[in-house]
Amino acid sequence: MLVRDWMTPNPRTVAPDTPVLDAIKMLKDQGYRRLPVLEGDRLVGIVTDKDLKDAMPSKATTLSVWELNYLLSKLAVSEVMAKPVITVDADEPLEEAALLMEEYKVGGLPVLSKGKLVGIITITDVLKAFIEVMGMREGGLRITLDVEDKPGALERLGAAVKPSNIVSVATAGRHDGYRIVVLRVIGEALDTVVDRLKNAGEKVLDVRETKPRKL
Amino acid sequence: MLVRDWMTPNPRTVAPDTPVLDAIKMLKDQGYRRLPVLEGDRLVGIVTDKDLKDAMPSKATTLSVWELNYLLSKLAVSEVMAKPVITVDADEPLEEAALLMEEYKVGGLPVLSKGKLVGIITITDVLKAFIEVMGMREGGLRITLDVEDKPGALERLGAAVKPSNIVSVATAGRHDGYRIVVLRVIGEALDTVVDRLKNAGEKVLDVRETKPRKL
Amino acid sequence: MLVRDWMTPNPRTVAPDTPVLDAIKMLKDQGYRRLPVLEGDRLVGIVTDKDLKDAMPSKATTLSVWELNYLLSKLAVSEVMAKPVITVDADEPLEEAALLMEEYKVGGLPVLSKGKLVGIITITDVLKAFIEVMGMREGGLRITLDVEDKPGALERLGAAVKPSNIVSVATAGRHDGYRIVVLRVIGEALDTVVDRLKNAGEKVLDVRETKPRKL
Amino acid sequence: MLVRDWMTPNPRTVAPDTPVLDAIKMLKDQGYRRLPVLEGDRLVGIVTDKDLKDAMPSKATTLSVWELNYLLSKLAVSEVMAKPVITVDADEPLEEAALLMEEYKVGGLPVLSKGKLVGIITITDVLKAFIEVMGMREGGLRITLDVEDKPGALERLGAAVKPSNIVSVATAGRHDGYRIVVLRVIGEALDTVVDRLKNAGEKVLDVRETKPRKL
Repeated sequence: MLVRDWMTPNPRTVAPDTPVLDAIKMLKDQGYRRLPVLEGDRLVGIVTDKDLKDAMPSKATTLSVWELNYLLSKLAVSEVMAKPVITVDADEPLEEAALLMEEYKVGGLPVLSKGKLVGIITITDVLKAFIEVMGMREGGLRITLDVEDKPGALERLGAAVKPSNIVSVATAGRHDGYRIVVLRVIGEALDTVVDRLKNAGEKVLDVRETKPRKL
Repeated sequence: MLVRDWMTPNPRTVAPDTPVLDAIKMLKDQGYRRLPVLEGDRLVGIVTDKDLKDAMPSKATTLSVWELNYLLSKLAVSEVMAKPVITVDADEPLEEAALLMEEYKVGGLPVLSKGKLVGIITITDVLKAFIEVMGMREGGLRITLDVEDKPGALERLGAAVKPSNIVSVATAGRHDGYRIVVLRVIGEALDTVVDRLKNAGEKVLDVRETKPRKL
Repeated sequence: MLVRDWMTPNPRTVAPDTPVLDAIKMLKDQGYRRLPVLEGDRLVGIVTDKDLKDAMPSKATTLSVWELNYLLSKLAVSEVMAKPVITVDADEPLEEAALLMEEYKVGGLPVLSKGKLVGIITITDVLKAFIEVMGMREGGLRITLDVEDKPGALERLGAAVKPSNIVSVATAGRHDGYRIVVLRVIGEALDTVVDRLKNAGEKVLDVRETKPRKL
Repeated sequence: MLVRDWMTPNPRTVAPDTPVLDAIKMLKDQGYRRLPVLEGDRLVGIVTDKDLKDAMPSKATTLSVWELNYLLSKLAVSEVMAKPVITVDADEPLEEAALLMEEYKVGGLPVLSKGKLVGIITITDVLKAFIEVMGMREGGLRITLDVEDKPGALERLGAAVKPSNIVSVATAGRHDGYRIVVLRVIGEALDTVVDRLKNAGEKVLDVRETKPRKL
């Protein structure tokens, strides 16, 4: 689950002197939200549809529509782009990219490999990964448990669930020596898996049947 | 890990007859991206900053700046909002909301409880949840393995990892009877956990040390 | 040739709180260039198409397109109108209105009668009057002369021109005790009028035949 | 009173491929209202501030603000200019230019001499000429009369006015064998000129004292 497995490769880019209005049109025509800005093959910034549309072209104290439109027609991407740009390496785990997006409050990152731009990874890619790691593709039972926060806890869960098959295990929070854990379980003997867990002493908080989803 | 645990409660809303330009200003002043549209206390639509800014106010064949600005000044949120609006119940799992966002290509959903609007859940909330379930808060070793896709596999992993503690288990793909599984492991004896896994016959694909992150 | 004879009576007006964008639309729909601003029946200002379109809605230091459009949608005619407004009384000579337009560099004036707005007089009305007073409706000979700037000069010109008929006499400049006078002459014996003028000692500078024009 | 005496010589011009937004800025910076469009030294059109600001850049059925702004930023003067352009020769009488302005409903005309652009003549120049020919510079008495529409009428008026001096004679309308004539009279014996006119049998309709005006 590395960035390179989830990114969009070979993203469209713009030069720093591209007019803002042309960049907005490119994004609309292509259905994208952001454009890395390249000077030659060096990444110098990134612009989003929102940055471009919220551009403030002037320090002037007052402006007519025409003065604003004139200034806007002369405004280049380089004057609006975010820089220095936050990037992630293609070989980093996807969750590292997610953390950078959260930390810098951005919706996407240019992806580098050996210092060259090779892709773009966005919050939408993280959304898809989240759906994947939560095992939604496979359906089955979604079981939330309060599990003692100790080594061997997962071994015990695995033993109790057998002969059913655990697809994913997500930690959804911790409290007082316990973890709240969300399991997704598929396979044989699903109708009795909750009983087996309870018999093994596990605290079952919530159980939901889910259907496999096409993604 | 339910929608209600991750949503923003009591979101700002607009009435259907709110001018588009006023709604854009509200979003900017409050730093939000989308506004549920309420008629009385009934949810009738949702508008995003992008929908509002891309509004096409006219069917006219040609338009001057002034005609467009005039029409824009008269344009109401109801003419631009997405409807019928895709919603999610507060008691649904977060991954259900994520799936709806992916399926309908939207970045956020109004959250209902007993038919009333109680919150808004966005792709940014999913980003935060992804970071959480991947165990990034706790650091430790991130180990990617090729695991036989059979019941009991997790029990065996748990046994091999002990006395270290498994924080998260994510399925990152499947192939030919195997799952690619990403474990995050913390606690005692981390320096030998990879050896223990290999000795137990597991195929270790990738190992990375990570530091705990403040989120 | 009074203002009331040339003005447009009963002009369309706007209230001070009319949105600028609505006023622009009114002007376009009606094909006018300016609107008197009335508060009740009291004239408080005048706005032109150009004033409205060059409105600068803000003192803010920087503005995005959206902030400008928002401010513009809230901008009222009263914030853009010229005031105090230069007016002319309906019973004044048209040339008085022309002089005010020239002096205040405006293209039109509200016309008052007993303090109430009764019309609007514009530079286009002056254009029509100029065409009229220059006698272009009637065609004939246009003769430019250098005439001694003394009482009785016109009597002598009239005598020399007879039996032709002088339609207009315009002073087009003065120099060294002479006036440059433009006559428009119609009627009988036009083919010999220049000879008669020369025989009477007048200095003829320029002669042009013109056709009657439909106005 | 020829066009060349009243025109603005050496007007600023634009090339056909000048962006509309640049042309608007030029007009604003220079305080003009219209720009002749030259291709090399050939006049190919004229654009006014109003034409430029009312430009409709598209045949598209619907347009967002951004699409309009993009199209506007690419729009050239050649797509908005009036053509073929109505011109006047520098050696024509000013009233000929006035008539063209009235006939074609334009506020200004490029002025040619031997086929080359040498100036621009506008309705504001006509306004100034009207003030001049009406004799307002000189003040004096403004007398409106009903005069029989016959040869010799002006000779009789001139005789009656003497020893005062007639500055201008404007025909302001005709009815039933009469002309309405506006005289401006200066010089000696002004206090009795109306009596002299009445004694000579002239019908005096209106008399106003005026002061000399600085123009």
